[in-house]
Amino acid sequence: MTKIACVNGHFLPENEANISIFDRGFLFGDGIYEAISVVGGKLIDVEPHLARLDRSLDAVDMRSPYSHNEIIELLRELVRKNSFSEGLLYFQITRGVAPRAFHFPPDSVSSSFVAFILPMALVDREEVRLGVKLISIEEQRWKRRDIKSIGLLPQCLGKQAAVEQGCFEALMVEDGMVTEGTSSSAYIIKNNTLITRPLSSAILPGVTRRAMLALARQDKIKIDERAFSIQEAYQADEACITAASNFIMPVIEIDGHKIGNGKPGPLVSRLRELYIEEALKTAI
Amino acid sequence: MTKIACVNGHFLPENEANISIFDRGFLFGDGIYEAISVVGGKLIDVEPHLARLDRSLDAVDMRSPYSHNEIIELLRELVRKNSFSEGLLYFQITRGVAPRAFHFPPDSVSSSFVAFILPMALVDREEVRLGVKLISIEEQRWKRRDIKSIGLLPQCLGKQAAVEQGCFEALMVEDGMVTEGTSSSAYIIKNNTLITRPLSSAILPGVTRRAMLALARQDKIKIDERAFSIQEAYQADEACITAASNFIMPVIEIDGHKIGNGKPGPLVSRLRELYIEEALKTAI
Repeated sequence: MTKIACVNGHFLPENEANISIFDRGFLFGDGIYEAISVVGGKLIDVEPHLARLDRSLDAVDMRSPYSHNEIIELLRELVRKNSFSEGLLYFQITRGVAPRAFHFPPDSVSSSFVAFILPMALVDREEVRLGVKLISIEEQRWKRRDIKSIGLLPQCLGKQAAVEQGCFEALMVEDGMVTEGTSSSAYIIKNNTLITRPLSSAILPGVTRRAMLALARQDKIKIDERAFSIQEAYQADEACITAASNFIMPVIEIDGHKIGNGKPGPLVSRLRELYIEEALKTAI
Repeated sequence: MTKIACVNGHFLPENEANISIFDRGFLFGDGIYEAISVVGGKLIDVEPHLARLDRSLDAVDMRSPYSHNEIIELLRELVRKNSFSEGLLYFQITRGVAPRAFHFPPDSVSSSFVAFILPMALVDREEVRLGVKLISIEEQRWKRRDIKSIGLLPQCLGKQAAVEQGCFEALMVEDGMVTEGTSSSAYIIKNNTLITRPLSSAILPGVTRRAMLALARQDKIKIDERAFSIQEAYQADEACITAASNFIMPVIEIDGHKIGNGKPGPLVSRLRELYIEEALKTAI
């Protein structure tokens, strides 16, 4: 069955879902996106995703064509029309269709809104049972990585490098310190302390990161929000990455260095269980 | 009259020129572009533009769907169909239409090609007679600025800042040194020496830059390829920027500092004349 996408409020088959070549998303990467996980047809962590959307839009002086409630309604309609059960709801807002010029178009040009589903297993995955392998690469992105923009070429190149080496993800390293994965936040655990880089313009404020840290705090797990080096990561007891598409994913190898005993660690596994339990409870 | 654009070899009115929302150009900024100036219906500096296109495509491991000759033929057809006389021929190649995933799609997915015209005066412009004003901003782009990718959000933000301050362009400054303009190469002239940053991954290898430096060499103008500071720029005798859309554009003010006597300088004006003469002679 052909999946249904949403383009500016219109629902249509994905193979008919088109946008003007003059959309600034296509010509300049001038857009912001979010991806919300769905389990059992329900949306997870909706409120922090929409808050981050607003934050990104504000940072680039872009307007959303819809209110939060309107966006939620469009996403739910997409779930219904696709009988969608599990995976990601992807949506992006771009600065609209206008003759190509670097500066912003006049206010009369309204932003574009596009959304579609990405069916995938989120809860029950072999990668979670086995753990995943990572590589590290040089950080090459722009300075405002806290803005979730669709200009993702460095991330694509990084992920491709990982895949070519039979790995799941690439950690980006700047001045010897890990920033984050190409599409995930990064963590190590050493002596029962969860270590992750503090929020700044160097990394994306991860929605799953936020939820996991809250759960870790409730569970009295010690948290150290600081940058860690890639060398330190090699020596970690456990490691994991988080993302809406991964929830909490155990890492068992980085650059060929086995992490801990080379199996998903107990603390990461516990946090994943706690996260899923909480996510399903609060999904809407 | 509605202008005609080219989408994957098909010519159609611009308001019908669409692309799938799943094109990687729209979802990831995963594309490369070029803009070739046209005067009297003839294309300027075609060969170095196509050489740079290949260089950018190679750097991101992307394939062109067309040979150089095929691209030239499509661009010429665009000129003919639009009775196009003066302005820019814009074209971009993106990594094709595929389900959204950061890593590259399989080889069976062919790249997309889009081209259109941007009519504008290039030779006879009031800005050239008056000179233009610039601001400076912090360099925020990724590390591979030598790749002409469509991920241009930092450049859009920079140009918008310039326009809001009544200026023509923004110079980007890294560690106190000018890299380049948001869509132009940057130069100062001091004691009859033309000073411009040497090529590296910090700047785009400008096609107009290349042509101007060759003309300056022929004309026995002293060239110093080195980085210059924004402070040094304020004190310059003359300044200019170059781009396919600007040819050689005299700069008369940077961050409110008058350059020289605040009028287009003689050396810049001479270089512009030489450039246009040569460009028209070699246009095809």
